[in-house]
Amino acid sequence: MTTAVEMAQIWRGAIKESVHMGHAVICDAKGHVIEAWGDPDLVMLPRSSCKMVQALPLVESGVALDERQLALSCASHSGAAVHTEAVSRWLADLGLGEADLRCGPQEPEDIPARNGLIRAEEAPCQIHNNCSGKHAGFLTLNQKMGGDAEYVNPDHPLQLAIKDAFEDVTGETSPGYGIDGCSAPNFATSLSGLARAMAFFANAHRQSGVRAEAASRLTAAMMAHPLLVAGETRACTRLMRAMDGRAAIKTGAEAVFVAILPEQGLGVALKIADGTTRAAECAIASILVRLGVLEADHPATLERRNAPILNRRGIETGMIRPGEAFA
Amino acid sequence: MTTAVEMAQIWRGAIKESVHMGHAVICDAKGHVIEAWGDPDLVMLPRSSCKMVQALPLVESGVALDERQLALSCASHSGAAVHTEAVSRWLADLGLGEADLRCGPQEPEDIPARNGLIRAEEAPCQIHNNCSGKHAGFLTLNQKMGGDAEYVNPDHPLQLAIKDAFEDVTGETSPGYGIDGCSAPNFATSLSGLARAMAFFANAHRQSGVRAEAASRLTAAMMAHPLLVAGETRACTRLMRAMDGRAAIKTGAEAVFVAILPEQGLGVALKIADGTTRAAECAIASILVRLGVLEADHPATLERRNAPILNRRGIETGMIRPGEAFA
Repeated sequence: MTTAVEMAQIWRGAIKESVHMGHAVICDAKGHVIEAWGDPDLVMLPRSSCKMVQALPLVESGVALDERQLALSCASHSGAAVHTEAVSRWLADLGLGEADLRCGPQEPEDIPARNGLIRAEEAPCQIHNNCSGKHAGFLTLNQKMGGDAEYVNPDHPLQLAIKDAFEDVTGETSPGYGIDGCSAPNFATSLSGLARAMAFFANAHRQSGVRAEAASRLTAAMMAHPLLVAGETRACTRLMRAMDGRAAIKTGAEAVFVAILPEQGLGVALKIADGTTRAAECAIASILVRLGVLEADHPATLERRNAPILNRRGIETGMIRPGEAFA
Repeated sequence: MTTAVEMAQIWRGAIKESVHMGHAVICDAKGHVIEAWGDPDLVMLPRSSCKMVQALPLVESGVALDERQLALSCASHSGAAVHTEAVSRWLADLGLGEADLRCGPQEPEDIPARNGLIRAEEAPCQIHNNCSGKHAGFLTLNQKMGGDAEYVNPDHPLQLAIKDAFEDVTGETSPGYGIDGCSAPNFATSLSGLARAMAFFANAHRQSGVRAEAASRLTAAMMAHPLLVAGETRACTRLMRAMDGRAAIKTGAEAVFVAILPEQGLGVALKIADGTTRAAECAIASILVRLGVLEADHPATLERRNAPILNRRGIETGMIRPGEAFA
C-alpha cells in the first residue's frame, strides 16, 4: 500500500499545527488512472460523494422528474427552507410523507432553519436530514418498482439495483458495504474505481444509452443548481458556482470529495485519511485549480485553500494551506 | 523527525474508514521521558491543554480564590448555566463585567444553554466563551498587578509572567507562540516539554515552594470539579469522574490532550497530527488505561475508545477503536 501524502496544512502563527494526509486519483474517459497521489487502490466508502451513482436507477426508470429534483437526489443539503420545502412538495406529489422516509432526523446545518425549529420548540424531522432528497428519489423509484417500505435494506430490490449500477460505473465488484448515516447501504470501492465512475459521468454527454443519458442529466442538474446540492456556506455550492458549469463536485462524510469535469472528460476522487472535511475541501480545490476549471484567486477557492483562520474576535490567528502534494 | 504512529481507527462495517496518527510522551518526576510514541521533539501548541500552567501566576499571586474558581481558571467549559453563572459572579465580585473580557463571544456547546439563547433571541456573549473562566482569572491577576486593560497582548506583563511560568515548568525556552481562539498568546513547546510540565504538576504535592503549592492546588481543583472543567457530555468531565481523583486531564484544540497523575508522579502529553478531537480522546483513554488509573471497561472509557458509531436512526454503523500503537 502506498502511503498517504500531505494534502493540507493548518498553520497558527509560525507553527505548523496540524497536517492532513490523503489519497487522490484522476481518471480519463477510458477509465485509466492518469494521475494519482497516495494509494489509488485504497478500499474506501464513498459515502455521500456517490449520490449521483445511487440516483442512476431512479433516472433510468423513466419517471418524470424535473432538474431541481435531480439535483436534490444528489444532494447533501443543509436543511434550509429551500431544500425542505422542495422535498416536502416532492413527497406530497408522491402521496407520501415524512414518516415514509428511512433517513432519520437531523438538526439542520442551516442556521436560520436550525434556530427557527428551536424557537418553535419543534424537533428536527427526517425532511431536515441532509439526505432527504436522495431518499425522496429512493421513494419515487420504490413506488414505481412496487417494493416494500423498508427500501434501505441492503437486499431490497432498490438497493440491489443501485449496487449493480455502482459496480458498472466503478468497473469493480464491490468488496462490501457499510451502513451510511442515513441508513442506506454504502458500497465500497477502490479510490480509482470511484474516480472511474466520475469519469463515466464526465463523458456521458458524449455517449448514448440509457445509463449515459441518466448520468449526463444528473451532472447537468448538479451544475445548474449548486444551492440545492449543498447550501449557501458550503464548499460544493460555492465552488460549483465559481466554476459556473465547468464541473460538478460532491463531498462525502469522512473527507471524501469527487469531481466530474465534462469539458475534459475527467473524473476525480479523493479521500483524506483522517476523515476531516476542511482538508478534503482544500485538496479538491487544489486539484480543480490544477486541472484548469477553477481560478486560483477566486474568493471561493481562497476560502477553502488559502483561508485565514479567524478567532472569536475575528483576529487572524492562522491559515489553511495546500499540502506538499499540491505545493 | 520520527513519524506519527496510528492512535485511533474509525471503522464502518468491515471497512477501516479513517485513521488518526499522532505523538505522545510520558514523563516521570525528574522530567525524563519514560515512554514515547511518534516524535517526542514535535514542536506544538498546547492550546487549552496548558490552562493550568497559564493559571500558575494567578494562584502564586496569593489572591483569594475558592476551589471552584481554580477549576474554572483551567476550564474549557461548555457554556452551561453552571459555568456562566459562576463566571458572572466572579466578574461581579471583581467589580468588572462582560465587556472587560477579551476572549470574544462563542455559542455555548451546552445544548440547553444554546437553545435558551436562541429562544430568547439573545446573541452569545463573552461569558459563554469556553475560556471565560481562564479570562476571569486573567482579570483577577491583572487587577492585582494594575496592568492595562489589554491583558491578552503578548507583551502585557500578565502574559510575560505566564511565559516565564510556562518555560519554567516545560524546562524549555519557548520557540514562539500562536494567538489562541480566545486571543491570548499560546506558547509553543516540544511535546516532551508539555509532558514535563504535567509531571511537575503531578509531583507538586510532594514538593514545597510557591509554584509547587499553586500547581498542587490547581490539580486538586480540577479533580474535585470535573464538571466545571468541561461539561456533562465531555471527555474531560466523564473521564475525570471515572478516575475519581486519580488523575487530572485536559483537552486542547487541534487534538491535544494532557494528563497529570499525582499517585504515580507522571505527566502525559499527546497530539493527534490531524487535529481531530475524537482521536485525542481515544488515545488519552488508551494511555490512562495502560497507566492503571482508568478502568478499561468503565462506561466513560468505552464511549471514547471502543464506542459504537450510531447513525441518525440510532443504528450502529461502525466503531472507534484504539490504533496499532495501543493494540
